[in-house]
Amino acid sequence: MPRYCFTAQIEPRCIDEYKRRHAAVWPEMLEALRDAGWRNYSLFLSDAGMLVGYFEADDKDAAHARMAATAVNARWQAEMARLFAGTRTANPDAEFQYLPIVFNLAEQLQSQGLPTD
Amino acid sequence: MPRYCFTAQIEPRCIDEYKRRHAAVWPEMLEALRDAGWRNYSLFLSDAGMLVGYFEADDKDAAHARMAATAVNARWQAEMARLFAGTRTANPDAEFQYLPIVFNLAEQLQSQGLPTD
Repeated sequence: MPRYCFTAQIEPRCIDEYKRRHAAVWPEMLEALRDAGWRNYSLFLSDAGMLVGYFEADDKDAAHARMAATAVNARWQAEMARLFAGTRTANPDAEFQYLPIVFNLAEQLQSQGLPTD
Repeated sequence: MPRYCFTAQIEPRCIDEYKRRHAAVWPEMLEALRDAGWRNYSLFLSDAGMLVGYFEADDKDAAHARMAATAVNARWQAEMARLFAGTRTANPDAEFQYLPIVFNLAEQLQSQGLPTD
């Protein structure tokens, strides 16, 4: 399953609120992500507000599109928007910067004919 | 299993070389990472040289220590050092900046009593 990584910037003054909100995400939002195909999804946040997301999905664009079609996502993103730096829309996840993958351990072990565990 | 994310900066002029080297990591290095307990390890690299690493391990510090004890890691890191921006040591992975985790989808589904898939 493809692996994805994105970054975004949280307003430094909003870091504590971002952490608090993400320590107790709405159950409907969690279920929507699960049902939209987001797998092994984690968020990491530096002290300076750099946000890094990691997830696995059969298809990133389809996973985003399925979330975008839910009412709960629109409500959640609208509440989160002001926590992001420089966001001019009510949909900060449309502005995630994706980073290309350049290495995966298991794939290279496999491609070189080596056991993966 | 705990999840970890780190960032580092690659010299912009060395981005192509970094990608080329990581598209064909030495087999001994791959096996050392596997045997040291690095799981689901990926690297992502932005066009501007921002490197993001993601992996899972029972214990990050133990996984680093086991790699640090291998001869192949010393050889690999010495060759990679000049590709990192501002690195003054021959061991760039000692300077990774780790970001605290603030969200994991499966953990929150579980803690709220919801199915994870």
